[in-house]
Amino acid sequence: MPEVEIVEVGPRDGLQNIATFVPTETKVEFIRRLIDAGFKRMELGSFVSPSAIPQMRDMEEVIAALGPLPDDVRGMVLTPNLKGFQRAVAAGLENPIFVLSMSESHNQSNVRRSVDASIKDLAATLETMDPDRKLNVRVGLATCFHCPFEGVMEESVILKTIERIVSLRSGMDYTISDTTGMATPAHVRSLAEKCIAAFGDDASFGFHGHDTAGFGVANILAAREAGVTSFDTAAAGLGGCPFAPGATGNIPSEDIVYLFERLGVSTGIDLEKLLAAGVMITDASGAKIASHTQAIPRARLFADLNGTPPRDAQAN
Amino acid sequence: MPEVEIVEVGPRDGLQNIATFVPTETKVEFIRRLIDAGFKRMELGSFVSPSAIPQMRDMEEVIAALGPLPDDVRGMVLTPNLKGFQRAVAAGLENPIFVLSMSESHNQSNVRRSVDASIKDLAATLETMDPDRKLNVRVGLATCFHCPFEGVMEESVILKTIERIVSLRSGMDYTISDTTGMATPAHVRSLAEKCIAAFGDDASFGFHGHDTAGFGVANILAAREAGVTSFDTAAAGLGGCPFAPGATGNIPSEDIVYLFERLGVSTGIDLEKLLAAGVMITDASGAKIASHTQAIPRARLFADLNGTPPRDAQAN
Repeated sequence: MPEVEIVEVGPRDGLQNIATFVPTETKVEFIRRLIDAGFKRMELGSFVSPSAIPQMRDMEEVIAALGPLPDDVRGMVLTPNLKGFQRAVAAGLENPIFVLSMSESHNQSNVRRSVDASIKDLAATLETMDPDRKLNVRVGLATCFHCPFEGVMEESVILKTIERIVSLRSGMDYTISDTTGMATPAHVRSLAEKCIAAFGDDASFGFHGHDTAGFGVANILAAREAGVTSFDTAAAGLGGCPFAPGATGNIPSEDIVYLFERLGVSTGIDLEKLLAAGVMITDASGAKIASHTQAIPRARLFADLNGTPPRDAQAN
Repeated sequence: MPEVEIVEVGPRDGLQNIATFVPTETKVEFIRRLIDAGFKRMELGSFVSPSAIPQMRDMEEVIAALGPLPDDVRGMVLTPNLKGFQRAVAAGLENPIFVLSMSESHNQSNVRRSVDASIKDLAATLETMDPDRKLNVRVGLATCFHCPFEGVMEESVILKTIERIVSLRSGMDYTISDTTGMATPAHVRSLAEKCIAAFGDDASFGFHGHDTAGFGVANILAAREAGVTSFDTAAAGLGGCPFAPGATGNIPSEDIVYLFERLGVSTGIDLEKLLAAGVMITDASGAKIASHTQAIPRARLFADLNGTPPRDAQAN
């Protein structure tokens, strides 16, 4: 049983933020490779408006081509509203992610409604759920630390909003999200500690970061120190930065798997297969590899994991 | 008085690891801008063999063109051996850095002698020093965590070697160096704690990291948690990676200054001037900007530092 869970978000938060439309069969191949690498929970894509996010316009085809996932793999899809949620459920998906922003202005910009309206949407969405059908709902809490319009967010405001959402239904998963990638490690540790202390009995919290300011790795370690054990990352660091088009955004899965394995914390992920999946998707999409680990010679990388010097070094 | 000291190493560890030879006047302009940005201690270059490192072949000219530095600025030069040390002292420099590796094979590869021979060299170097002339000697302890040939280093071996060096003379500065950039934050914290506990009365310890595995920021925070308050970084993340030619290597000064200032820890550095120095030297040298902070729009960056939303965001 792995000690931390690495949630792969490349097929969603990665591919929806790069310029190229990635063909359905490439998406499917990428997802299959990630499953083969050992990911047990991943974001497969978004049920969003194809005009808003054309990169995700083939979601139904991706899901159909994938077919049933292995029993122990939870494929999640992001649904920003009731309509997306219903599309996802109709496609047979049991793991919807409902996303809303903690910041009023970001929520308006992202889903064109107030935070209050989004919470009511979520309540209505939960009510439409067939009580006999087991659905694992994840709530993505965007802009928990920093908003592109409002700057640094107030913790007390965030905690009050989370309290309202948690009170809708117990047992849901949440991602405390640093949407802009501008949170500091101290801020991440502090909010994660408070969320777990206040709502930990009714809710479980993962951390979703970005690497905009270069604090991604440090933020994941800070979240872990606060008691978080589930982390969103993307193969090859796939995805865009919310400020700088073309810059890197998501925290690279390879770097986090490598970090935890070096620290002796098991992830359950096969790093070699993950590295290959990252190379495959960047080759196929033209996206840049943002992972540091990908640039390290494989012999060096695996020698350090195994505790022995690489063969070429021994010969030196 | 700043709470942490950021030691700029771009003119040395940055420029000596890029392919281009940077003209003397550009080096001087870069160093002047860094001083203007507020750095009080920096590596100006290396007194090394011009055939081994041609990028540093104009060290004497750089020092002469710079002229006397402001009284509160300590310009350091790296000297790998007695000959380099004597050249530096002859050039009027009072802040030599003597560098040796903790790993036998890296020391052989780097300075073609055993660790024992390097320690004897250092002892001889210290003996040549005119007791009436005040010299601030810094000792760069390379490969404290990880060696490109031997892999992960044993703490007990490192501590024994450091003990031998500290016993040569009290009051010297040291940099615990992650030369390959492959150290984990836990390893950095652990060794830094042990060094300070064992030798903190006779020696002061800074941390010199690299960002090869993407752990640079986390490693600096880990060193700080252990009690280290001095950190080596390079403007724009200038420099090469010891494994991947062309990849980034040094931890970007901008990202660390921005991190500490966001955390409310004063650095004494003017971030705007530092950003401009990073742009200037990468423009002039053709080197890639590896700093995350450089890619964030300035309005956003400074709004968050000042605690107010940026003007364009307020209008949204």
